[in-house]
Amino acid sequence: MATFADIGLAAVINIVTALVFLLAFAILRLQPFNDRVYFPKWYIKGLRSSPTHSGAFASKIVNLDLRSYLKFLNWMPDALKMPELELIDHAGLDSAVYLRIYLIGLKIFVPITFLAWAILVPVNWTNSTLEQGPSKLTYSDIDKLSISNIPLGSLRFWTHIVMAYAFTLWTCYVLQKEYATIASMRLHFMASERRRPDQFTVLVRNVPPDPDESVSELVEHFFLVNHSDHYLTHQVVYNANKLAELVKEKKSKQNWLDYYQLKYSRNQSQRPMMKTGFLGLCGDRVDAINHDTAEIERLSKEIAAERERVTSDPKSIMPAAFVSFKTRWGAAVCAQTQQSRNPTLWLTEWAPEPRDVYWQNLAIPYVSLTIRRLIITVAFFFLTFFFMIPIAFVQSLANIEGIEKRAPYLKVIIDIKFIKSFIQGFLPGIALKIFLIVLPTILMLMSKFEGFLCISALERRSASRYYLFNFVNVFLGSIIAGTAFEQLNAFIKQSARQIPKTIGVGIPMKATFFITYIMVDGWAGIAGEILRLKPLIFFHLKNFLLVKTEKDREEAMDPGSLGFDTGEPQIQFYFLLGLVYAVVAPVLLPFILIFFALAYVVFRHQIINVYNQEYESAGAFWPDVHGRIIAALVVSQLLLMGLLGTKEAALTTPFLIALPVLTIWFHIFCKGRYEPAFVRYPLQEAKMKDTLERAREPNLNLKGYLQNAYIHPIFKGDDDDEDEEFNGKLEQESVLVPTKRQSRRNTPVPSKISSSSTPSLPDAIEENPER
Amino acid sequence: MATFADIGLAAVINIVTALVFLLAFAILRLQPFNDRVYFPKWYIKGLRSSPTHSGAFASKIVNLDLRSYLKFLNWMPDALKMPELELIDHAGLDSAVYLRIYLIGLKIFVPITFLAWAILVPVNWTNSTLEQGPSKLTYSDIDKLSISNIPLGSLRFWTHIVMAYAFTLWTCYVLQKEYATIASMRLHFMASERRRPDQFTVLVRNVPPDPDESVSELVEHFFLVNHSDHYLTHQVVYNANKLAELVKEKKSKQNWLDYYQLKYSRNQSQRPMMKTGFLGLCGDRVDAINHDTAEIERLSKEIAAERERVTSDPKSIMPAAFVSFKTRWGAAVCAQTQQSRNPTLWLTEWAPEPRDVYWQNLAIPYVSLTIRRLIITVAFFFLTFFFMIPIAFVQSLANIEGIEKRAPYLKVIIDIKFIKSFIQGFLPGIALKIFLIVLPTILMLMSKFEGFLCISALERRSASRYYLFNFVNVFLGSIIAGTAFEQLNAFIKQSARQIPKTIGVGIPMKATFFITYIMVDGWAGIAGEILRLKPLIFFHLKNFLLVKTEKDREEAMDPGSLGFDTGEPQIQFYFLLGLVYAVVAPVLLPFILIFFALAYVVFRHQIINVYNQEYESAGAFWPDVHGRIIAALVVSQLLLMGLLGTKEAALTTPFLIALPVLTIWFHIFCKGRYEPAFVRYPLQEAKMKDTLERAREPNLNLKGYLQNAYIHPIFKGDDDDEDEEFNGKLEQESVLVPTKRQSRRNTPVPSKISSSSTPSLPDAIEENPER
Repeated sequence: MATFADIGLAAVINIVTALVFLLAFAILRLQPFNDRVYFPKWYIKGLRSSPTHSGAFASKIVNLDLRSYLKFLNWMPDALKMPELELIDHAGLDSAVYLRIYLIGLKIFVPITFLAWAILVPVNWTNSTLEQGPSKLTYSDIDKLSISNIPLGSLRFWTHIVMAYAFTLWTCYVLQKEYATIASMRLHFMASERRRPDQFTVLVRNVPPDPDESVSELVEHFFLVNHSDHYLTHQVVYNANKLAELVKEKKSKQNWLDYYQLKYSRNQSQRPMMKTGFLGLCGDRVDAINHDTAEIERLSKEIAAERERVTSDPKSIMPAAFVSFKTRWGAAVCAQTQQSRNPTLWLTEWAPEPRDVYWQNLAIPYVSLTIRRLIITVAFFFLTFFFMIPIAFVQSLANIEGIEKRAPYLKVIIDIKFIKSFIQGFLPGIALKIFLIVLPTILMLMSKFEGFLCISALERRSASRYYLFNFVNVFLGSIIAGTAFEQLNAFIKQSARQIPKTIGVGIPMKATFFITYIMVDGWAGIAGEILRLKPLIFFHLKNFLLVKTEKDREEAMDPGSLGFDTGEPQIQFYFLLGLVYAVVAPVLLPFILIFFALAYVVFRHQIINVYNQEYESAGAFWPDVHGRIIAALVVSQLLLMGLLGTKEAALTTPFLIALPVLTIWFHIFCKGRYEPAFVRYPLQEAKMKDTLERAREPNLNLKGYLQNAYIHPIFKGDDDDEDEEFNGKLEQESVLVPTKRQSRRNTPVPSKISSSSTPSLPDAIEENPER
Repeated sequence: MATFADIGLAAVINIVTALVFLLAFAILRLQPFNDRVYFPKWYIKGLRSSPTHSGAFASKIVNLDLRSYLKFLNWMPDALKMPELELIDHAGLDSAVYLRIYLIGLKIFVPITFLAWAILVPVNWTNSTLEQGPSKLTYSDIDKLSISNIPLGSLRFWTHIVMAYAFTLWTCYVLQKEYATIASMRLHFMASERRRPDQFTVLVRNVPPDPDESVSELVEHFFLVNHSDHYLTHQVVYNANKLAELVKEKKSKQNWLDYYQLKYSRNQSQRPMMKTGFLGLCGDRVDAINHDTAEIERLSKEIAAERERVTSDPKSIMPAAFVSFKTRWGAAVCAQTQQSRNPTLWLTEWAPEPRDVYWQNLAIPYVSLTIRRLIITVAFFFLTFFFMIPIAFVQSLANIEGIEKRAPYLKVIIDIKFIKSFIQGFLPGIALKIFLIVLPTILMLMSKFEGFLCISALERRSASRYYLFNFVNVFLGSIIAGTAFEQLNAFIKQSARQIPKTIGVGIPMKATFFITYIMVDGWAGIAGEILRLKPLIFFHLKNFLLVKTEKDREEAMDPGSLGFDTGEPQIQFYFLLGLVYAVVAPVLLPFILIFFALAYVVFRHQIINVYNQEYESAGAFWPDVHGRIIAALVVSQLLLMGLLGTKEAALTTPFLIALPVLTIWFHIFCKGRYEPAFVRYPLQEAKMKDTLERAREPNLNLKGYLQNAYIHPIFKGDDDDEDEEFNGKLEQESVLVPTKRQSRRNTPVPSKISSSSTPSLPDAIEENPER
């Protein structure tokens, strides 16, 4: 087992790593030529542009103002300065709510840490079970702080029970407060929001086929009959998947063409050549520029033909439509009710935001949907349980004693103190991390196959799968497989009722492993997050190879988005660790506190300066977050029961049974009380907004506003000229109504505050057409 | 273990019992003085009246027509004759759907029985494992037909796997067809139904308190704002629980007064005396008639005062209301949507039928509701698991070998062959039955405390609790406790993963026990059901002691209602037994078939002739029925897996894992496809009915029709004069609209077919104002 010294070394390594990352970030971000990597959000919002307009060439690339290097950590207070309301304005409610997950971590764990260190640590420390006991396993100093140091059957276990109750009550209290706050934030956000097309629009799926009418006619007739007073207009959905592919291909060819042209312009002596075969590795050698130009022309023609076909061929119309209503009330009613006798036809739900729609999945019929769900459930089960084998293997490698036993010839190397500590402190965390990097993509593909209709739902489902995967493989996998190796397969053939006991026993022993995991994944990982190494490299590569115009540079700048599907399960894992170890080994808690605090600052900075908002779901993911914290709480209670069950403290265990029951009841209560705010839209609110709007703008041309809101993005023009033409047409149609359908990339507003490193929020945001 | 002879004796006993019951019924039902016991439904519907108008005195009491005794079983074809559509007209959709549960039992088990006897029985029989094996347990001939007779690790287990698949597929196929049929029956019923108040009405609960407005004003304002185009009227709910109690007390006193007066009129020499104290056992002796008259007068005054108080005191108005809309569309919209920001206020749901409302529970606030649910869940858990102890004790008594071992002095008596068979065949079933008689009342009280709003929901919840109880105590309890006694506590301390194996192993051995259970509970019990011994005795007692007028006689006639909360779990238990034993011991299947067939005929007869319809939920219970059959299927699959896991047929078990997965997926599919038809009301249907109605009756006075539909029954008049007055007023108000609020007891329609024993369905039903 790892000693204090091992942990100390690991901590030093990770703190140094984190500091190096932070320092590198502090230096890199001050260089103007990295500006687009570290502040892309301000470019996207049009509040900042390339620093080309003034100064010498050198100062455009390197920051020569030495004073600014002295304050290399001043981004931290900057990141914390922006008040929450401004943050919501700046980055959307989703981001603000996301940050509150870190805050809730602090809210839960700061008091728990203090209480645990004030009461549990002394209670554990003042025993000498581990020193005296003829234990079969070797224990270290760290274990003296944990529950392992309490003698069997001791009355001191009552302290742990009382603490378990206190921690549960405190967690539930914080969760309930937070749920209430976020529900009201969401409702307030939706009420104060400007007019958006999705407030008036409902997505209708599974329109039944009709031999006499087209989908469009059928939808119109159906809603004219069944929502006669409220129906306004509708927009059918085209199956433009092939068209989207062609456009994507054309874009890729265009990139290559740009690259070759740039290469040729730099070295005019030689025309660039390429091979036409697979990945440019085989086939005929041709002149690259000519070939790509021809290809692009061919694709342009094909795209035009396909576009023509899609809009004219009735078969390319999918049995789905976006139906818009005259009032929010009408839309709220339609979204919440069942339309037809057959509950699998005419399915209605709130339309997602136009940018949130996942177009490919709109046409999946009901039966196919349930079959897909079954397939994915089974596939996910296998994915989860087959990943376990390699992880268990890597875990077992990371155990010094195990390696020495198996491969005595490595003893010489391993016995070097530094390497030993390194292996124990570092390796298990990294091995796990590599596994986990591959995973989110697979999970996202699964969610897409399963048929969700909007990106936010895809991410939510991926996140919950990712969490489950983490729980089974990282959490349980680490505890059981690792301990199994140590305890010589002692309990491999134990039965299912023993599992809480087995895991419970393994938990205190795994405290040091999870401490190193927190340091590698949590501390260094978060510090690495702010450095944005991958976008930095890619930006400069693209900048060097492709960029010719200002627009190209804007495209090369890839801010990315928050990545709920990977980020949230990561946080949740720390909730799980914190709650499980709070009673068992409080020594772990401070490490988690540091993670939550650091991550909060870093992500607040990233959200303000970097990430682009992909969609706005108004915090729709909070029920998931809440549910998973509750699940972690229940798991921690069950494991504590299992652990105490082995401690001959038979009297105490029954007192723990009430805890999961109460926790689950609390969850049901919260679900009923707050969850509807995230699923439905109260008619009272809708009516209020409708009435207000009618009073303010009695002559509103709503039809014009909604008519083209839900067009497949491919028709909105990949070419800029089309786009502008389109926008122009739209503005003519409805002058009163500001549309959001301007290209998010071309922001004409000049930078007003490009000199300060982190711009303070200017009033200009209010005038900015993007919000 | 029981042998063929034991089973044979038990079968003979039970068949004789059943035949005696049937014969007694056949004779009793032909006696005119029992007519009101065996045909009350026809009296209630006003199609039959007391046979007072003709014939001699003797023929009024005893049927002297000897020929009619010869055809003593002719009620059976009569019961089957009525077509389903007429049955729905006559007894409501609930009853018709309830009968379909028996039919679905036949549909599932007839093919399964044939297949099992054609394939599984020969496969099992042609082994000799039991004869040769040095088994620790004694086996009997019956076990030779079961899976126990297959040698360990035999390839013959593949037959059982294939059969398990076949049975599952067939069951799912039948279930799916049936779900589709019943969903469409429900929708068709609701579409073809006459106008009913609940189609236009929504129940609103948790109206928030308002300092400035009364509940009534608040409700009116809220709906005038939020459903401006559709709101019609509303009816607040009074807290009349105390008033209802007073009325009940008065009625009881009135009954006693009638009794004493009758007694006095028969024996004028002596004034009847009574004691005023507890239960008439202590206290002063007073003149009974005078005392009761005075009491009734006092109560009448109190009732008047309380009635006055309830209608005038604002505190007696509960924060709930029945809100009626101009159209079915408006009501459907309001019932399916969320009204207010706070999802626990202004809760709306479909109003139940007026007669279905459970008035006491209308005012429970949301938080109290969730706490009640928690309390009842915990209480039900304890109820379920503490009942187990006495049952296990009785079960173990019923084992001859066990008794002989414990109490050798009883050996002489027990060894008499007849007594031995009697104990083994009869006792366990009866002991269980006695336990189960007490239970439904407790469960119903629990459901009431939990706060459901209508009687149908109360019964549904009680039914599902009863089923769970049966499953844990009767099914698992019998298998484990019994086997535990036999196997000398061999597996008491086994772990949870072993449980399917433990139960699976116990199953084949318990086949004979369950066969006797089916015969006692299923055969004889159902035959006893048709005899209606309790109502028969009570009717004649009341008739002798209380009845003075024709109206009294009608009140004494107590048809009862179907009792979904006890009847359905009983049927479900047979589904469970059938599905579990289909593969393991097919010998049980014919017994179940006989139960389903007999019960179908008997209940069809009872529904046609006896039971009064308490409410009409339009088959809302079918999702529960479906879900429980699925649960039984999954249990049977898990137990089969457990059983095969002990048979050293390791290769075969993995093939069974897919079965529960597929079954649960099938359930999810059905839930999505059909359940909404039982929960929501499609807008398309509502619109269609609205349009039709508007075309037919453009001048309909809907407000008059709905205004008083949802009055607390206590205000509808316990006295007849008030009632009639009330009805008269109502008819004046809205001549066009036939109301249902006439006393169901006073049916002026004279009997048209009182001579035939089971009246064929006359056209008169169409004219009958009751439907």
